[in-house]
Amino acid sequence: MSRTVNAYAALTSGAPLEPWTYEQRTPREHDVVFDVQFCGICHTDIHMIGPWGQSFPMVPGHEMVGRVTQVGSGVHSLAVGDLVAVGPVVDSCRTCEPCLAGLETYCLEGATGAYGVPDRVDGSPTRGGFADSVVCDERFVHRVPDGLDPAAAAPLLCAGITTYSPLRHWNIGPGSTVGVIGIGGLGHLGIKFARAMGAEVVAFTTSQSKADAALALGAHEVVMSRSETQMAAQANRFDFLLDTVSATYPMTPFVQALKMNGTLCSLGLPSSFDVAPFALAMRRSIAGSGAGGTVETREMLQFCVDHQITADVEMVAPSQINSALERLDRGDVAFRFVVDMAR
Amino acid sequence: MSRTVNAYAALTSGAPLEPWTYEQRTPREHDVVFDVQFCGICHTDIHMIGPWGQSFPMVPGHEMVGRVTQVGSGVHSLAVGDLVAVGPVVDSCRTCEPCLAGLETYCLEGATGAYGVPDRVDGSPTRGGFADSVVCDERFVHRVPDGLDPAAAAPLLCAGITTYSPLRHWNIGPGSTVGVIGIGGLGHLGIKFARAMGAEVVAFTTSQSKADAALALGAHEVVMSRSETQMAAQANRFDFLLDTVSATYPMTPFVQALKMNGTLCSLGLPSSFDVAPFALAMRRSIAGSGAGGTVETREMLQFCVDHQITADVEMVAPSQINSALERLDRGDVAFRFVVDMAR
Repeated sequence: MSRTVNAYAALTSGAPLEPWTYEQRTPREHDVVFDVQFCGICHTDIHMIGPWGQSFPMVPGHEMVGRVTQVGSGVHSLAVGDLVAVGPVVDSCRTCEPCLAGLETYCLEGATGAYGVPDRVDGSPTRGGFADSVVCDERFVHRVPDGLDPAAAAPLLCAGITTYSPLRHWNIGPGSTVGVIGIGGLGHLGIKFARAMGAEVVAFTTSQSKADAALALGAHEVVMSRSETQMAAQANRFDFLLDTVSATYPMTPFVQALKMNGTLCSLGLPSSFDVAPFALAMRRSIAGSGAGGTVETREMLQFCVDHQITADVEMVAPSQINSALERLDRGDVAFRFVVDMAR
Repeated sequence: MSRTVNAYAALTSGAPLEPWTYEQRTPREHDVVFDVQFCGICHTDIHMIGPWGQSFPMVPGHEMVGRVTQVGSGVHSLAVGDLVAVGPVVDSCRTCEPCLAGLETYCLEGATGAYGVPDRVDGSPTRGGFADSVVCDERFVHRVPDGLDPAAAAPLLCAGITTYSPLRHWNIGPGSTVGVIGIGGLGHLGIKFARAMGAEVVAFTTSQSKADAALALGAHEVVMSRSETQMAAQANRFDFLLDTVSATYPMTPFVQALKMNGTLCSLGLPSSFDVAPFALAMRRSIAGSGAGGTVETREMLQFCVDHQITADVEMVAPSQINSALERLDRGDVAFRFVVDMAR
């Protein structure tokens, strides 16, 4: 039986979010329905409401935490009342090599995003977490383990897994020297994860206030990246650089800060790289990475319980989403906005 | 006792090579002196004679094969009469992590190039292989194993090891699908190596004549890279792309041709990359690589004997070096010029 969802939507491309209702589909056999309690605001939301968006009205939000209210007849992994979380991917082909490895983000048919793209079954647009209820296939619904604050856990579903996954893939651990470039929503979690994994952690920032914050978050050291002297002193130091910057910036000094065989992993999807290819010749790499898949997301949630890691969040009411999006766009947040959907 | 070397030198930046003599140093304890028989012409020579060059007169040439004529008192690994080869690196610090691993090319103090840079001991400019004699520390002098044609082996010392090393580093073997981009001096050896290592090999070229040649060299398949249709059909296919192109070209379709976790290794040192960062998000990488070190060079020479691999060369006389450099600059060579220094 369908129900009417109270949501916040951009009715057209670039429009501010406003209250809007839509009819939620009747749960399918493997669907889980949950009341959204908290939903983080991600920089991708700004792109999607703007130039990337293909389908409007659009209900954004892909860092969701909430309580299960209904399950389909085939759902045995979750039950009504469970605290659950959903991230940016809500479906995939499930048969390609990445899907079989639990890396659905990299589905060769294209993963189905949490909002604004066609549902794989009925073709209706997917709807995100700035809403009082969401329906999602159980494969992509994760139980939130006991011991995590639900509001501060919401950003783990995108900012968290997006930083955790590459640190794991590139085998960061004791003995690794890791730099985190950009200390925002992603970067602040990157520092916490790399530190908890046992690495020597250096934060790169352009802002003195972020420098102090980075040390408080667990960085062993901070490099002011606009200082040519400080940057030159980093040459050949790093096994791995986790780059969370979404703008194009002069990347060559960072690549030169990598050791032989080192990797700079860019997560920010800038429009281009400003890098001199010769800097890579020392068998260095520039890589990208998406959010992790379902297997790694569950592993990360347990890691967060074990190491008591959640995001540093600023809570806002649904009525403040538009101002929060504006503040995020100009970098005025420490470190992640989370919307209290029950407020 | 020093001797007078008859060489070919660029007397000033950008000048054509002309006959020139210089005094070779008296051999040190670990020096090996050899008469140069063959020396390949590398695209780097064009850059060094031109804008990259710091010290003139300059004697280029770093793909040398010749016969030992004299050895220092401490040399036990080689003897007068041995057929030997020297590549682009002739010294390094020998104590840093890359040097200790036999990867002297990546020496943290900067490897000493075969020509046009200061010798680490006496500060005099190093002199390359377009000459009747060369002196070099034994660590960087490789015995040419029996069973290789000396002229066709010369390009193995740079073009060869530069393509062999990344194929080995990225574990190419049976089951790998490898693309080779650009079928010139490096690319034609890349095809031979990748095929001999057991990979499925696809050549990417813009030229029909190179397409036919690539199949003859051992490629299983050729993709015409200016065909959008053919390029689109390569999506998610390759474990590894060996990119030998020295110009900036539209790289995004190639990155999209990589599988998840795949790597495009750029060897051509273009001035910039024309690539959309989002294409990397599927955990793909763009890497660089230099020539291999001494350990890998010796391994490669044995691999070449075992698989009967040498370069396809066009022999020229010393009097033809300048015209060969001009033809190389416009891509008119199949596949490597080698100067017969004894002619």
